[in-house]
Amino acid sequence: MTNPRPRIGILTISDRATRGEYEDLSGPAIEAALRDYLATECDYERRLVLDEVPDITDAIRAFAEAGCALVCSSGGTGPSPRDVTPEAMEKICDKLLPGFGEKMRSASLEVGVPTAILSRQTAGIVGQSLVVNLPGKPASIRVCLDAIFPAVPYCIDLIGGPFLEGNADVVEVFRPQQR
Amino acid sequence: MTNPRPRIGILTISDRATRGEYEDLSGPAIEAALRDYLATECDYERRLVLDEVPDITDAIRAFAEAGCALVCSSGGTGPSPRDVTPEAMEKICDKLLPGFGEKMRSASLEVGVPTAILSRQTAGIVGQSLVVNLPGKPASIRVCLDAIFPAVPYCIDLIGGPFLEGNADVVEVFRPQQR
Amino acid sequence: MTNPRPRIGILTISDRATRGEYEDLSGPAIEAALRDYLATECDYERRLVLDEVPDITDAIRAFAEAGCALVCSSGGTGPSPRDVTPEAMEKICDKLLPGFGEKMRSASLEVGVPTAILSRQTAGIVGQSLVVNLPGKPASIRVCLDAIFPAVPYCIDLIGGPFLEGNADVVEVFRPQQR
Repeated sequence: MTNPRPRIGILTISDRATRGEYEDLSGPAIEAALRDYLATECDYERRLVLDEVPDITDAIRAFAEAGCALVCSSGGTGPSPRDVTPEAMEKICDKLLPGFGEKMRSASLEVGVPTAILSRQTAGIVGQSLVVNLPGKPASIRVCLDAIFPAVPYCIDLIGGPFLEGNADVVEVFRPQQR
Repeated sequence: MTNPRPRIGILTISDRATRGEYEDLSGPAIEAALRDYLATECDYERRLVLDEVPDITDAIRAFAEAGCALVCSSGGTGPSPRDVTPEAMEKICDKLLPGFGEKMRSASLEVGVPTAILSRQTAGIVGQSLVVNLPGKPASIRVCLDAIFPAVPYCIDLIGGPFLEGNADVVEVFRPQQR
Repeated sequence: MTNPRPRIGILTISDRATRGEYEDLSGPAIEAALRDYLATECDYERRLVLDEVPDITDAIRAFAEAGCALVCSSGGTGPSPRDVTPEAMEKICDKLLPGFGEKMRSASLEVGVPTAILSRQTAGIVGQSLVVNLPGKPASIRVCLDAIFPAVPYCIDLIGGPFLEGNADVVEVFRPQQR
């Protein structure tokens, strides 16, 4: 008897990728990074949605209800009129975790991207799922994920999710000693 | 046939400067810095208002409706009872951009001002205008503007404003390659 | 004729410590740090409450109404379901000061704690009291307090509280020159 494999949802938020106007490169880039970080075998599911608040909240809710421990989105976090990912996050999250956005912005600034301050990326909790917003640009995804991933497995522990083990040669997963 | 010159609004938020109890040094300091950064010729308009939410929101709305691509305010961002600029921003902005406040506070911390953490400066979008809160103290204005200005022209691009060119010898304006 | 001594409230937010399941180490650790920083003699009062929003807001309000210039809480700032300190802060604070949370998280990151990004610590103003959230773990309390304390006395000046003097050999209290 074994536990089911942990599930991870990946959500590409993009009008153009959803309409097939270009190929979704962000979703596969996120999956590749997570497979690289995680020693634990997980099931990955990818979806695409339009830049519309109800589409985004529906997709996140569906991933959470399907038992995803982690949901990573890409796109929709800038200042443009069609960028509404943060508005969807405010609607659907039980709690927002501003430290994720701070850390991702500062990591992007450190690699020489001054426009990182335009990003409204955040993270939050939906039930027993951690939801993290990543940038839409594939090149920036790994910078942001590298910056925050060491804290992800412990966060999932705290909200009652599965125990995820990292690949020690790729990422240093951190779990503080509990009191 | 030429485009009209881009417009920039500068708003000094200060009871005492508005009542003439002292000279407004912040507004001229902001205008001087922006003229220094920008190769594009712009029209600048300066206003003073009391530290009252309706006065601040009215002034920002008027600048946005007059077509200002950028509105820079100074003052009213501290913890004092009369400091209400952030409350006005929350009321009037379509979107808030927390990365601006983070970057301005960290830039001020870096130049040795530990009380930068008391500042509630932020930035946001009102229609097609980017609104940025700066400190009230003239000495701190340039520190904050230097820190965030490289991202300003691209932000204005994203919200449909005019194309602003920087003075390359003063500031390195950054525009990431679009996908 | 002397002024009454400044008052400082210390609030341990913990189900288990409140029920006596373990000893409250955080409250005494905060008091020890503050006594170390402050040259001004103050009266310290410590309380423990459950991780419940009404208990937390009642305790903060009581400290504020008793004239505490500073209220330091510990605990309840993580992503777990029972962590509700930030929700209580949003309810009770007149103003939130996001720079405190940013600075405490970045100080914890700097000492090698990647999970600092999970913390939702913040600070805010309740009447004439500055309220600062600290971590629940005693080892992390001093890291966070060291990072933000230089700005605390000036913040208390700005909200009309008592003038607090620091121990110059322990902490460099910073008061910018007023205009």
